[in-house]
Amino acid sequence: MVKLLDVTLRDGGYTNSFQFEQQVAIDIVDSLHQAGIDYIEIGYRNGPEEGPTKLGLSARVNRDYIHAIRTHVPGAKIVVMLHPHNISEQDLLELKEFNINVVRICIRSDNLQNGLSVIRSAKQQGLFVSANFVRVTYLSPLQIREWMLQAEAAGADWVYFADSNGHMVPDQVKEYAEIFKKVLQIPVGFHAHHNLSLGLTNTLAAIESGIDIIDASLRGLGKGAGNLPTEVYVSYLERMNIKHNYDLVSILKTAEYLENNVMHRPMYLTTRDLMFGMANFSNDFINPVMHEAATQDVSWQQLTLNLSKRKPIKPVFEEIKAVVADIKSLDKILAPTLEERSL
Amino acid sequence: MVKLLDVTLRDGGYTNSFQFEQQVAIDIVDSLHQAGIDYIEIGYRNGPEEGPTKLGLSARVNRDYIHAIRTHVPGAKIVVMLHPHNISEQDLLELKEFNINVVRICIRSDNLQNGLSVIRSAKQQGLFVSANFVRVTYLSPLQIREWMLQAEAAGADWVYFADSNGHMVPDQVKEYAEIFKKVLQIPVGFHAHHNLSLGLTNTLAAIESGIDIIDASLRGLGKGAGNLPTEVYVSYLERMNIKHNYDLVSILKTAEYLENNVMHRPMYLTTRDLMFGMANFSNDFINPVMHEAATQDVSWQQLTLNLSKRKPIKPVFEEIKAVVADIKSLDKILAPTLEERSL
Repeated sequence: MVKLLDVTLRDGGYTNSFQFEQQVAIDIVDSLHQAGIDYIEIGYRNGPEEGPTKLGLSARVNRDYIHAIRTHVPGAKIVVMLHPHNISEQDLLELKEFNINVVRICIRSDNLQNGLSVIRSAKQQGLFVSANFVRVTYLSPLQIREWMLQAEAAGADWVYFADSNGHMVPDQVKEYAEIFKKVLQIPVGFHAHHNLSLGLTNTLAAIESGIDIIDASLRGLGKGAGNLPTEVYVSYLERMNIKHNYDLVSILKTAEYLENNVMHRPMYLTTRDLMFGMANFSNDFINPVMHEAATQDVSWQQLTLNLSKRKPIKPVFEEIKAVVADIKSLDKILAPTLEERSL
Repeated sequence: MVKLLDVTLRDGGYTNSFQFEQQVAIDIVDSLHQAGIDYIEIGYRNGPEEGPTKLGLSARVNRDYIHAIRTHVPGAKIVVMLHPHNISEQDLLELKEFNINVVRICIRSDNLQNGLSVIRSAKQQGLFVSANFVRVTYLSPLQIREWMLQAEAAGADWVYFADSNGHMVPDQVKEYAEIFKKVLQIPVGFHAHHNLSLGLTNTLAAIESGIDIIDASLRGLGKGAGNLPTEVYVSYLERMNIKHNYDLVSILKTAEYLENNVMHRPMYLTTRDLMFGMANFSNDFINPVMHEAATQDVSWQQLTLNLSKRKPIKPVFEEIKAVVADIKSLDKILAPTLEERSL
């Protein structure tokens, strides 16, 4: 049976600067636990990699916060995410002290050695460790598999791959998942994003390929286009008469509570998130792309589309400028034949 | 090459009582036409089957409205939808007079003979006719195929099947599409709804099964959970390097214009639309279900879930009452052991 890990309080924190009230966090964890959700992520220890500067409870995961959740919901399997660059032995000790069930370590190509080192430290403290490989669409599945094997050798209990840019399509998810499952002894997880409106479909493709754990969040709350909504996944299981242990009614009510009391706006697919997913661009590039489009008077839609045609790509400032220049010179040639449209 | 039919002004009208300003309708048709969209639906002639009582331009499709669109965008392939029960020969004559390119006739199990009769009349007037079979998840694909063959024999130029309740999953779409494609000589179209967040995935399944035409709308604007967004479909083609003739940048800008100037709220998947899709319930049952839940003090989520377990189902009032009674008697038995939760 595939396990379900809810990331509302962690990934969802990007939408509200991680400002969940402590009682709200307790209520969400309590409700999800009682509804049978297998694992519940409560935030980042010591902050996300990037993000807003004034961050709330679930971006810090300090003693008081963990203690409150642990006290009120002793039976829940609690997950905390961390970044290798800002974690001390003392942090790991505290996570162990409060019996955090899983620590997830974000690993990218540029922090692999640091990530492996944190895996080893966390294992020495007796923690259960997931090595989460993010932004996997920048890399080949064989490259990531090689790193996953290193994580496994370093003691990781799980590995995960995350479609951080929301660029994956189902056949690609299958390709990655099957390559990973073929060689890894430990469970493999998958984290989808919804930029191409394929959050559920990509997750189902991963499950079909034998994946062991999936991520989801209430109402899809998450960075950019957001995640597969927890309630959509469970409704799908219900729709397909797939046996499950989740209380759908309770999950729906918790989702609605979140929507009515916490969320600033519903998660919906904006055209920007759609285009950034199509183009395989990280959210990190929103500011430079939008800024250059605005100041150079080209449309960000055209700029994103033209940039995407140079894939595989991580747009850097020079490249953005070059594409802007291309668009402008083309505009100049075409200008006399173009009429201004009413839209 | 699969053809793309945009239904923004027709299906999207359910979200704003069909109150598109005439200039807005012209601008949308013009922009979509210039962006290469194959067919553009401008509304219902003589109103939708149900819906709000004060209806705007695109629910009537009168002479002035058609004339304005035809005059400003002479090259666009214009589509009008109609219901068999309220269409006269005079209506058909007028649609022909203004060179409407396709008339689509909504057909359900209870109006088949009337629908076939309108197909024959429309063909006699020289119109190009699509027979659109709606709410297909109430019926077996073989049953619908039988009716499609009758529509073909009556002169229909296309047939369509619509997942009006948003209940279909990709394998089911394929099953239906393949059964239809095997025997029909004329093109087959598919109209998705997004209740299970499968609008794109179901449409791709239909295309994989050889379907000829698909429906979509800008920003997903449509009844209930809405449709596959036109810009999502075209972004997907771009993402997959599938050759197409659409101008994505222009489509995105038109989608944003609609979002900023016409839409009352973004289309997003509400928990109610999710559950109604899961349960295979038409929007027509929202009022009785929600009313009975509210007055009988049971949760609509539990009521919908329990009703859905009696599928295949069109919930009627007696059935809703019976399920409410079941829930209440179970509540009574469990009540002493249940604690009130904070959520």
